[in-house]
Formats: sequence, structure tokens, C-alpha cells
Amino acid sequence: MPDFTDNLKPRYDGTATLQAERDASSINVDELAKHLLSRNGFLERQQRVLNVLSKEKLFNKDQLLNLSRPDRYYLGLARSKAIQRIGRKLGWDDEDYKMAEYLNDEMSPYHLHTTMFVTTVREQGSEEQKAYWLPKITNFDIIGCYAQTELGHGSNVRGLETVAKWDPERKEFEIHSPHLTASKWWNGAMGRTATHAIVVAQLLLPKQGKAHEYENHGPQPFIVQIRAEKTHQPMDGIVVGDIGPKYGYASMDNGYMLFDHYRVLKSALLSRYVDVSDDGKFTRHGHPAVLYGSLTFVRANIIMHARLILARAVTVAVRYLAIRRQFRDRDSTNEQEDEMKVLDYPTVQIRILPLLATTFALHYTGEYMYMLYQRSRETIEKGDFGPLAELHSASSGLKSLCTMLAADSIETCRRAMGGHGFGGGSGLVLINADYLSKPTVEGDNWMITQQVAAYLIKKMTQAVKNPNNKAKDPTDVLFQTYLQTRSSRTPKTIVSSSGIDDEAIVDAFQWRAADLSYRAYQARVVEKKPWTKLMVQLHNLSRAYSEQILVTNFYSSFETTSSPLSAPTPAVLRRCFRLYSLYTLDTFASSFTLTNAVTAESTYALLDAILELMTELRPHAVKLVDAWSIPDWLLDSALGRSDGKVYEDLYDRAHRRNPLNKITFNPDYRSEEIVLGSGDGGRDLLAKL
Amino acid sequence: MPDFTDNLKPRYDGTATLQAERDASSINVDELAKHLLSRNGFLERQQRVLNVLSKEKLFNKDQLLNLSRPDRYYLGLARSKAIQRIGRKLGWDDEDYKMAEYLNDEMSPYHLHTTMFVTTVREQGSEEQKAYWLPKITNFDIIGCYAQTELGHGSNVRGLETVAKWDPERKEFEIHSPHLTASKWWNGAMGRTATHAIVVAQLLLPKQGKAHEYENHGPQPFIVQIRAEKTHQPMDGIVVGDIGPKYGYASMDNGYMLFDHYRVLKSALLSRYVDVSDDGKFTRHGHPAVLYGSLTFVRANIIMHARLILARAVTVAVRYLAIRRQFRDRDSTNEQEDEMKVLDYPTVQIRILPLLATTFALHYTGEYMYMLYQRSRETIEKGDFGPLAELHSASSGLKSLCTMLAADSIETCRRAMGGHGFGGGSGLVLINADYLSKPTVEGDNWMITQQVAAYLIKKMTQAVKNPNNKAKDPTDVLFQTYLQTRSSRTPKTIVSSSGIDDEAIVDAFQWRAADLSYRAYQARVVEKKPWTKLMVQLHNLSRAYSEQILVTNFYSSFETTSSPLSAPTPAVLRRCFRLYSLYTLDTFASSFTLTNAVTAESTYALLDAILELMTELRPHAVKLVDAWSIPDWLLDSALGRSDGKVYEDLYDRAHRRNPLNKITFNPDYRSEEIVLGSGDGGRDLLAKL
Repeated sequence: MPDFTDNLKPRYDGTATLQAERDASSINVDELAKHLLSRNGFLERQQRVLNVLSKEKLFNKDQLLNLSRPDRYYLGLARSKAIQRIGRKLGWDDEDYKMAEYLNDEMSPYHLHTTMFVTTVREQGSEEQKAYWLPKITNFDIIGCYAQTELGHGSNVRGLETVAKWDPERKEFEIHSPHLTASKWWNGAMGRTATHAIVVAQLLLPKQGKAHEYENHGPQPFIVQIRAEKTHQPMDGIVVGDIGPKYGYASMDNGYMLFDHYRVLKSALLSRYVDVSDDGKFTRHGHPAVLYGSLTFVRANIIMHARLILARAVTVAVRYLAIRRQFRDRDSTNEQEDEMKVLDYPTVQIRILPLLATTFALHYTGEYMYMLYQRSRETIEKGDFGPLAELHSASSGLKSLCTMLAADSIETCRRAMGGHGFGGGSGLVLINADYLSKPTVEGDNWMITQQVAAYLIKKMTQAVKNPNNKAKDPTDVLFQTYLQTRSSRTPKTIVSSSGIDDEAIVDAFQWRAADLSYRAYQARVVEKKPWTKLMVQLHNLSRAYSEQILVTNFYSSFETTSSPLSAPTPAVLRRCFRLYSLYTLDTFASSFTLTNAVTAESTYALLDAILELMTELRPHAVKLVDAWSIPDWLLDSALGRSDGKVYEDLYDRAHRRNPLNKITFNPDYRSEEIVLGSGDGGRDLLAKL
Repeated sequence: MPDFTDNLKPRYDGTATLQAERDASSINVDELAKHLLSRNGFLERQQRVLNVLSKEKLFNKDQLLNLSRPDRYYLGLARSKAIQRIGRKLGWDDEDYKMAEYLNDEMSPYHLHTTMFVTTVREQGSEEQKAYWLPKITNFDIIGCYAQTELGHGSNVRGLETVAKWDPERKEFEIHSPHLTASKWWNGAMGRTATHAIVVAQLLLPKQGKAHEYENHGPQPFIVQIRAEKTHQPMDGIVVGDIGPKYGYASMDNGYMLFDHYRVLKSALLSRYVDVSDDGKFTRHGHPAVLYGSLTFVRANIIMHARLILARAVTVAVRYLAIRRQFRDRDSTNEQEDEMKVLDYPTVQIRILPLLATTFALHYTGEYMYMLYQRSRETIEKGDFGPLAELHSASSGLKSLCTMLAADSIETCRRAMGGHGFGGGSGLVLINADYLSKPTVEGDNWMITQQVAAYLIKKMTQAVKNPNNKAKDPTDVLFQTYLQTRSSRTPKTIVSSSGIDDEAIVDAFQWRAADLSYRAYQARVVEKKPWTKLMVQLHNLSRAYSEQILVTNFYSSFETTSSPLSAPTPAVLRRCFRLYSLYTLDTFASSFTLTNAVTAESTYALLDAILELMTELRPHAVKLVDAWSIPDWLLDSALGRSDGKVYEDLYDRAHRRNPLNKITFNPDYRSEEIVLGSGDGGRDLLAKL
């Protein structure tokens, strides 16, 4: 319905504002985008899949925030099914399907089927099992999930309560849930979608020669049908369902499942690495180290994904805050002067620009992880598992650090955007709700840092024992150098009147990580302190170690003899390196001075240096986020639109796309009627409660 | 439907675990609860109102996370209306209604009517206006909202674009929205509920003697009918509606509104302090300083509310983490040993226990603010507005600090709870979504710190000029002492082998705040640096100043000659004081050493001292959160239940209360049918997109 607001314009034109921002920087956005996003043909694939999905009404994002949680699952399933139909018609490959899930931006009820379920069968199934199951999986004749985590146990897999007991008479396993806390819990796609599950259960075999006594051979994977083919009802002896609404993942049916002496054939045990003979004897064969390899690959993906999440939050913030104006300069005497762009406030810059710099820090380390993974695959295939421990440790620490940085960044950006940041037009509501799972899944961010610290203590112990051993891993080199120069160390000056010393930055991060490792070694190995007492220090150590990796790899990216990037991009990226590094250094200044990495005076100069760097980066901010190439359709953000039509879009969402405005309510408390003229008395609603 | 899971129990009994926790501490919970929550009969009122609401089906919280946003508003309105009917029947007073809204835990569509709308009419209306409007308001014959913020302007009220132009011929105002960004925006209850609004608009009066030229007399409040009485449709010349879904506040209809030369009578201008004569002349009368008084009172309320939000998040976390077990002690050699309680991990304690300590820090400062407010009201009524500036400044800085601490605490607690923290059973999903508005509303947390810094610079300038002036406000005393001892200052040792020095803690926080104030004075007044360049330092100054207030007031609570609390509570609270203080000191160690407040060596000892304090506080954690007396019904948390039935409740929510489990889906991508056997093809869903 037309009205007088149809032709109103915002006071300042957002489109012209963003154009002016772009004109003021000479960064070549296309070139930088290709530099960042060419792996596996990312940019081309993104455009191609986007063209398909964005044209389908089913994938319209308009009403997502207005749907109930049950409707969100319903929609999520409908979309996942449509993606399969579309992809098969267009001949998509695996990467195309992944891109479709990324752009659709919801956890798919098929997600576990196409990842953990198929991977586990492929990696842990015997040749016979693979021949039987893989065609069914690829064909979607069955739909699988991965049932490991339980109500009572997540991180501690060895503590799982579900048991699979061998019945020597019938040559079958009996899967059983002895307690309520044995219930499988959280397992994606299990709630309503899956027909089959990989069930991880404690393998109990009779003790040889002893009746009714069992020996536990630890958690092992079983492939189990959980729902009947035609009716999709749970099999007898299984209770399974969806666990209900969560912070995010509304489209995903995370499930619970319990077993009542549920019997499965011997062939249910995935038996590439373990097996049970017909007379109940346990055997192991092969080396499951390759499993760590795929875990490491998953974590490298998480880092690369984290940088895109960060980039997305920062894209919204930078574009909106470059358009938003509020208050004239406090020192201005010109009453007619325009209000300042909010992004010109240092109090806003300090929340946003270090995060923008962080996107690049994550990028170069993600690339490094892929390279390491590739290299280690080659050595593993030759039977050398040596580099795997270093790779696994680095990937654990980085998973913890990077997902925390990305998760925190969304809320930081949102808050920096003031009122409109709290609105649905921010485009950050759903991404925040979904992404907040990441600090917990795939290894809790605080728990896995303990593994990193254990590795570093082991490495330091070796370095102390054999200071001149031939160093193999980067950590060996770092620790040996540290031990050799320890006695002559003087803290470095990072920032001085002659500028910022980039090599000193890298040195400071490396030194701090090595020194904290040495302190941990001293406390644990020499003084034999209880592990539990040291946990906080060890967590801090893992963070310092991971920050050192980010800083080192970022710095290494400048070392190529000729940059593939044209001016001024290399210089701008170097400022990003400095900003990320100095901002991190400032946040943990005390840790850097404690370890003699830098002088205390040097830390007092950091804030001014950071403010100066931000002033230098500010003109390039819009083009830097442009380079991350997040499509408007994915952003789904009025504030972050690439064309700057912030206020037009916010108004359109409110005035033309809000179903609540189609209903007239009765606000008079004397009447029980809620919708005016309906005489309903709220009965429909009460039925839902 | 009964099934084999009905009689399953969790492996560890949560109820017995919490009982053991409570038995292990001799804190008198009732006594501490009364100490914390007696103001205005809080505890008695909470119980009384809880008894009423929790029995009504309409207020059942079970399905909240499963409702769509339109349904949430529908429910919010139904509940608000019911509360009015119940309250009138039971003769509730204002505090009872507030308690009902607190326990119902949703922003009410009547909220603005009973707060800003009525307060503005009462404080800014003339006697005649009050006589006309207040009975209608009290009687809910009209329902009001407060329309100040616009699409383009929030913090900068002077930049509002809506105009109210005086028409000298018809003696009326014409309210008009010249741009799209002039649209009123965010205004609570305006979207669907309100019949009337206080509209804040730039008052334009004709320049005397000049035709068609107008003078702007700044933003002024007008009371305006926005919807017709019977039809509840917008008045002609007004476009008004709900802005759509947001992060939180689903039950509230935040609105937008534009005016097309909308005419209102002269009497629409609230004219206690300003008026326009019939011949278009502007007059001011009276002193509107009292308005700052009520703003200050609102902010004292925000601090007291923030402590309850913190308490709520910490209650859930402490109870759940005391029950949750994961991993045996790494150094344990006993294979049969129970897994550790997660709350016994220092890596978990360091996230939760400082927040528990913070609840008390906020409490004593909230009490102090009420006392100051009361005292300043008395002097204001005598015509002395002197103490108002100090009170306003303190309340601004504290609003910023306390709402940030509380907002961040929810996510910190959630993340510390691992997987189940991400589930709906945490009880933190909705409170987080709603509370995240607080860092922005009632003065953006970063923006208002600039006002605090401006005040401190002014005070320091006065202190430098007149070092022996009779000090009036606490800040005068602080700054004069600082200036007198500045030259002889030596940094203090907080933690040493002889223990923790509480007086040195208070001194360090005060010294740091004063020194940062002096640096700000030096940069701004002496070196005349641009304000904008100093903003980050000034923000940090405000935080330091506010932290000093929290520490000082917490410490003062120990100074009464005899504590009203029995042992061991006073000693436990002192440990909370130390933990809050040392944790804050450690976080900003660099700022404390820079200002010569403490020695660098002293900061290196902080972590060990913090770990030790946490070990001492750990046995009292459950009873300390018990004392905050958050009802289970309000917590609505499986994890935070006072009876410890964590797993039973999680399972009940999933298995018995989840509507998604009543539907059987068709997961086969080859079929467009979504609900199995319905042949629906997703048509119902597509209609909602």
C-alpha cells in the first residue's frame, strides 16, 4: 500500500558515502580477493552456487527471524533436500555442496551424513563394510549420524557410559544404556532425520575363562540402524528424539538416544583397526594415526572458516560505521559541520580495526596449516608419523584461539554498532547464535589447550636434555634457540621514536611462548607440581604459543622476494600485521614483560602506536572488507549492504516485510481478546504453551 | 507414553551432590540473603508475587524457545494484560507490578507506559496537563510510549530530525518527518500497542519579524495521539508499525513512526519548563536539573539489576559445574576414582568465581548509589544542585562498567558450561538475548564514558588551581590527596609473602584513577590535544574511575564496627573483595604499573594469589549463589535447578516437552514431502517465506 513514506530519502546518502570511501583508497580489491580466496576455486564457485540458490524462493532469508524453531527444522530439511535435487541436476561436486551449505548458512540435517558419518565408515570400516555401506551412503538410501557424545560425557570419550557387550552364544553385541546419563546427546541429525548412526560404545568382551566377567576394550564405533525403513519410527529397544531448542542450530535436529539391550550383528563393529573374533577375542590391526590426520584437517578448515566469520562481522561493522554519523567533532566550532562518521572515532576503531587485521592473521596461518597438512600426509603415507604430533598440537591451540577470536568478534562488532546492532537488520543474530557453538565443539577451547601445553612441556624437556639434537619441528628450533640465548637475554624495544621494529615483534612473541614453555617445564617436570594446579598457566601458555604462530606466519608472508600484490596493498597488509601484533601485545602486556620479551617502557608506548596505525588503516577499511567478498545475500544485513542502502533496507524490513504489522491488537487489559475483533481470548496461544 | 527410560537415573545423583556442597559450608544463607535483598521488602515480595504467577498456565515458560517472534509479542501482550487484571484484583502496588515483570522476565508492551511515559508527563507536564492526562494514564484508558530515538539518531538527541513547527495562524504545531532517517525508531510499545506517544521533536518557531524563517529551540516533548480509539488504526498523517525481530525483546513491539505534516494543538507541548505563547514566543521556566536526578535513579536501578543478572548467570554455572563431572585428576593413579567435579578445575574457577565475587562488588556500590541519590534529593529540594554533577558522573561510569560486566558474564558462564551451556536447558538463551541491549540503551557504554572523563578533567583542573580548596565531593578529596602526595609516591606492594594488603588494594585503585585523571588533564588542558585523539584513553579513565568506586565501596562495607553477619560470612565476603580486586588488577596490570600504583613484581604474584583465593572460596560457592535467592521458576534452567536434578530435567525437556518430537518427517531427498505421509510438498512453509 503506497503511503507518504515511499519517496523519503535518508538525510545522508549511504551509497555515495561508500563510493567516496572506495574512491579514497587505491587498493586493488579484485587482486586482493584473488590472493585471499583462490584456493579450490573459491571465488568462482561462490558466484556460481550463489546464482543458483539466490533465485530459489525456498532459500529466501527474509523471514528466518520470524519462524518458530520447529518451522526452522522443517525449513532446514526442505532446503537440504532441495540442495540434493539441484546439485544432482547440475552435477555438483563435493565442494559445490559445501559451498551451498555455507551460503545457505544453516546447519543442514544432512551435514553429519556427508561428513562424520561417511568419513568414519570410509576410515574405520573394513573393505567388506565399505563395499556394503558406501554405495548406500552416497546414494542417500540411508541417512547417517554420529552418536558419540552423551548426556554425561563429551570431552572425556573414555568415560562414555553406553556399552556394547559381546554375547558369545548368539555372536552378537548388545548395546545398552545403563544410566540416564548414558543417553546419546547433541548428536546432529539424529533427532528426526537419520535412519542410521555410528554409535560409539564401550566394547565389553567376556574375560577369557571367567563367566560373567567382562573386560572393557574402550570406546569403539558400531554402525546401527535406528529407524525403520518405511515408517521412520525408532527401532524396538531404541528411544530417540530431538533435544529441543538451543542457542543456535535451529535447523539442525540434535538428538538424544537410549538403548534397551539392543542387539546388533557382529558386523556392526567397524573393523578396519579393531575386531572381535567369533570366540570373543579382541584384535587390533593397522595404525589409526591417520585419524589424527583427518582431525587436523578438520581443524585447519575451522581456522579458515573462522577468518570468514570474522570477515563477515567486520564487513557489516565497517560498512555501517562508515555510513553512520553521530555528533559533531567536540572541538569543532562550526555549527553547520556534518556529524562525524562513527568509524572515525578512535573508540570505535579500537574495537573494529584490530579485528579487521585479525582476519589476515588467521588467513596466513590457515594457508600454512593446509601446507603442513599436505606435507604430513605425504610423510604419513610413507609410514613416518613424526610430524603429526607437532601438527596436531598446533592445530589444537589454533582451533582454541581462532574460534574464540571469531566468536567474540561478532558481539564486539554488534555492540560497536549501537542500537541498530541489536536489530535483526544487523544480519548478525543467527550467525552469532550458531557460531557460539564453535568454542565448545571439536574439542572444548579450554580443555584442548591442556593437550597443547603437555606437548610443549614434552618438547621443552627434550630440548633441555639434548640441547643440540637435530631439530625437526619448528618448536624444536624455537626451544633450542631459546635455551641457547636464555642467559644473555635482554628485553626488546618494540616501539621507539624510530618506529616499529617488525623483527622485534616476531621475536617477542616467540620468546614469550618459549619462556612460558620453560616455566611450565620447570613447574611440572622439575618441581613436580600437580597438573591441576597449573592449568590456568598452561592455558595461557597455549594461547601465547598460538599467537606466536599467527604472528610468525603473518610476518613470513612478507618475506617472498616479490609480492604478488600491487601497491599500496603490501604496505597496508604490513600495517595489519603490526596492528594485530601490537594490539595483542598490549592486551597481554604483563605476560610480555614478565617473560623479558619486551621492556615495560615499550609497552607504555603501544597505545599511541596502535592509534596511529588505525589512523593509517582507516582510509582502506571499506576496501579491505570488500576484498573478503562476502556476498550481500549471505550477509543478509541491512547495515552491511555493499551498496550502502542501510536506512532504506532497515525501513523496508520494518514497513514492508514484517508480518506482525498485518495484525491489529487489542491493548486494553480489561478485555481478554488479543487480536482486535477476533474475540479470541488468547485460546490459540494457550494451546501452544 | 511410558518407555524403558522412565526409571533410568543419572550415574551421579545431582541432588545429593548439591546437598553435600551445602553441608560443607557453614554460611548462613538466610541471613546473607536478608542482608543483600531486604530493600523495599524484596524477598517477601518476590515470594508473594511468585506464588501468584507461577500458578497461572499463561505464565508457563516451557515453550518460550519454541514460539515464533510474532507469537512472542502476542504472548507478551496477553501476559501484560493478565498482570494488570491480577494486580488490580489483589491490590498490588507499583513495586509488586515491577516484581511481576521481573519474574515474568519479558519486556512488557506496557513497560514504557508505566515508566518513561508516565514519568515524562509527571515531570514535564504543566499542572493543567497533569490533571488532564495522569488519570487517563493510571487508568490505562490510553497506553503511552516514548518516541525520542530516530532511525538516524540515538545518542545525539540534539541531532533529531523530526520537527514541530509553529503555525501562527492556526496556533498549532505541525509535526513532520523531513527525511527517512527522521523516522522514530526503536521506541518500545509503539509498534502495535500504544495509543499515545511522547514525541520529541525540534521546536521551530518563526523568527520575530521575518516571514518564512524559523528558529530552532531544540528538542522538546509533545504528547500526541497516534492511533484511533476504536479501530486502533494509525491516525491520518502518521505511519507507524513494529520494526521486526531483534536480538532479544521478542515480546516487545519496538516501533517506527513518521509524520506527514501532522497537526497537534498547542497544548500538546509539555510545558512545565518550556512554553510557547499564543504569539509564538518561546519561554523557559523552572530548573530542569531534577530530570538529571531521575536519570541518576534509573542508573542506580540498572546497577542493582545488573548484579541480579550476574547472580543469575553465576547461579546456573556454579550449581551445574558442581554437579558436572569430566575426567579423572590427571595425576591420579586410581583407576576407580570418580571423575572430577568441573568446578574444581582452576580453568573453570577463573571464569566463574571472579564473577561471583563481582556480584557483591556491584551490590555495595548499588547501595551506595541509592544512599547518594537519597541524600542529593534532599539537597536538590533545598535548591542546591551541587552534588548532582558528581552523582551523575559516577552513575554514568558505573552504568557503563556494570552493564558490560553483567552482559559479558552471561556468555562467559555459558561457555564455561561446555555443550549443555549451548542448549536451551541452560536458561541463559533469552536472558542473554534481552540483556545484550543494556550496554547500548540508557546511554551507550562507550559514549557516556566521555562525559565521565570530561567531569574528571574539570575536577582535576579545579584541584590543580586550588589545591587546598575545601573538598566537597569524594573526587575532590581523591584528587587533592593525589596532588599532595604525587611527588613522593612509590608504587605499592599488594601481594607479598606476608599476605594480601587490603588497604594497599584500595590505594592502588584510587591512585590509578587519580593518576589517569591527571594524565588526561595534562593532555587536554595543558597540551590542548584534540578531544577525539584522546577518546580511548578517556574511556579507559572512566573505567578505572568506576572500578575504584566499586573497590572503595566494597572495602567500606567491612568498616562497620560489628558486622551484621555471622561467621564465616564476613571472612568469605572479604575473600570476594580480594578476588574481584586482584582479578581486575591482573587484567589491567599494565595500567597499574604505568601509573606507579603498584610494583611490577607485585603484579607477577597476582595469578598465584588469585588461584589461592579461589581455592578458599570454592567450598562456599553453592551457598553464596543460593543467597542471591533467584527462584527456580525465574531461572528456568535445567542446569541451574536448586535441587540439582540437572540430567532429569534436560531429559524431560527433550523427551516430554519438545513439540518437534510429535512429528515424523520424510528425510528422503527424492520426495518433496516434508512431513511423512502428508504429501505436503512444503507448501505451508513456502507461504511463510
